[in-house]
Amino acid sequence: MKTITSRDNAQYKDLKHLATSSQARRKAGRTLLDGVHLCETWLQLRGLPEQCIVSESAMHNGEVAAIVARVTADHGHCLCLPDALYAPLSQVEHGVGLMFLVETPQRATPAALSVNAVLLDNVQDPGNVGSILRSAAAAGVKQVFCSPGTAFCWSPKVLRAAMGAHFVLDIFENAELAPLLREAPIATLATSGYAEQRLFDVDLKRPVAWVFGHEGQGVSDELLSLARYRVVIPHLGQVESLNVAACAAVCFFEQVRQNLS
Amino acid sequence: MKTITSRDNAQYKDLKHLATSSQARRKAGRTLLDGVHLCETWLQLRGLPEQCIVSESAMHNGEVAAIVARVTADHGHCLCLPDALYAPLSQVEHGVGLMFLVETPQRATPAALSVNAVLLDNVQDPGNVGSILRSAAAAGVKQVFCSPGTAFCWSPKVLRAAMGAHFVLDIFENAELAPLLREAPIATLATSGYAEQRLFDVDLKRPVAWVFGHEGQGVSDELLSLARYRVVIPHLGQVESLNVAACAAVCFFEQVRQNLS
Repeated sequence: MKTITSRDNAQYKDLKHLATSSQARRKAGRTLLDGVHLCETWLQLRGLPEQCIVSESAMHNGEVAAIVARVTADHGHCLCLPDALYAPLSQVEHGVGLMFLVETPQRATPAALSVNAVLLDNVQDPGNVGSILRSAAAAGVKQVFCSPGTAFCWSPKVLRAAMGAHFVLDIFENAELAPLLREAPIATLATSGYAEQRLFDVDLKRPVAWVFGHEGQGVSDELLSLARYRVVIPHLGQVESLNVAACAAVCFFEQVRQNLS
Repeated sequence: MKTITSRDNAQYKDLKHLATSSQARRKAGRTLLDGVHLCETWLQLRGLPEQCIVSESAMHNGEVAAIVARVTADHGHCLCLPDALYAPLSQVEHGVGLMFLVETPQRATPAALSVNAVLLDNVQDPGNVGSILRSAAAAGVKQVFCSPGTAFCWSPKVLRAAMGAHFVLDIFENAELAPLLREAPIATLATSGYAEQRLFDVDLKRPVAWVFGHEGQGVSDELLSLARYRVVIPHLGQVESLNVAACAAVCFFEQVRQNLS
């Protein structure tokens, strides 16, 4: 296992830049997965990371040591850092001292929707985006299209909230959502508090693309008008709306329910 | 409108203590609502606050000025603070400069469950607790019981995520959940990834109490065994579980769907 002890080491400086700059991650097409759960899920679903990075003290943690042993046995690259050098790399509070450097899958946006998908229009909060990815993966949604204004999916906060969902989804960022909706050969649904058709009354036993919008403003008027269905989740209480991630979960699992019934 | 300009003013020191200490808020039975949306919702559903606190520069904001005018017209108390004194009170990033000091409703825990309710067993994350309250209020759930380990409901983060749901729910904190479940005269359901009965197969056209648990460990074994039904939300994907707030939303709105069908 390689060790770096100097802050001036070029590889370390690159890592630190990647860890602290969302722009650097986008540009490099690489990100850091922080913690045991994400790293284990990556190993299980995607194989070896580009590099496994571990803090000196984390080597005393049994779960971390097991992952390092597995990466080493498969001839993967491991890098051990003194705790003082490791700390600035971790964007997670009370992290365990384990990260994977991985390539973020770069895919060309498909020309047309064809399978269960979710389109995110300016969803701002990384926790919401992560929760939506997690629910989507659990419900069997395959593709995620993010508008340019949506939170960057491969950021540490989104990765943490999604709990590995990234590794089973095809994620397309900076996607133009309007053309996808305009030419969609499958059913497209946007949720709106002002819609009249109830979610529960739409036939979801077919491929569907869902559109969810900004936490405050909702789905933009243009995208609302392009969706084939505008649906409302009926409310029985006095509160005006749902959190966007809660709304997405209700939609995804209504489709699951219909498909299982 | 009263103005305070000294940091040594006793009332200001009390407010600052309340703003920065969760323990102080619990002890005083008071909390601070931050921002236009929460304050407007309080006015609409609960009436005047104990005090309306505004920063000098926020008085130039039309929405804030309208709220201050309304409180003053109804003979409520307003306090204006120089920005430098206001800032340490706000726990919200980029806050608008408006807060209400309000009493947190203190209610004795009912002896038995009788209406739609949610029981939170050690739910840690304030964002999750807030999202669950918001979904509960939207779905017509009336009561929320929180175990001693659950995040404090009247904290700024929970209040912000719940968007006013607090004001239409009866919230009971530090509640002992086991006795409530043991003697429940209504149906009680706990979700578990290991359960065999599907959520969709349970009759929810009756009062129901839901139990949701810790983000990592789920509902405790004791509470799981005390619930009348242990149900699973069927998954179609490879990801192991849902975020607890997403899970709660799916459950609440499955009940709404059944009640509307």
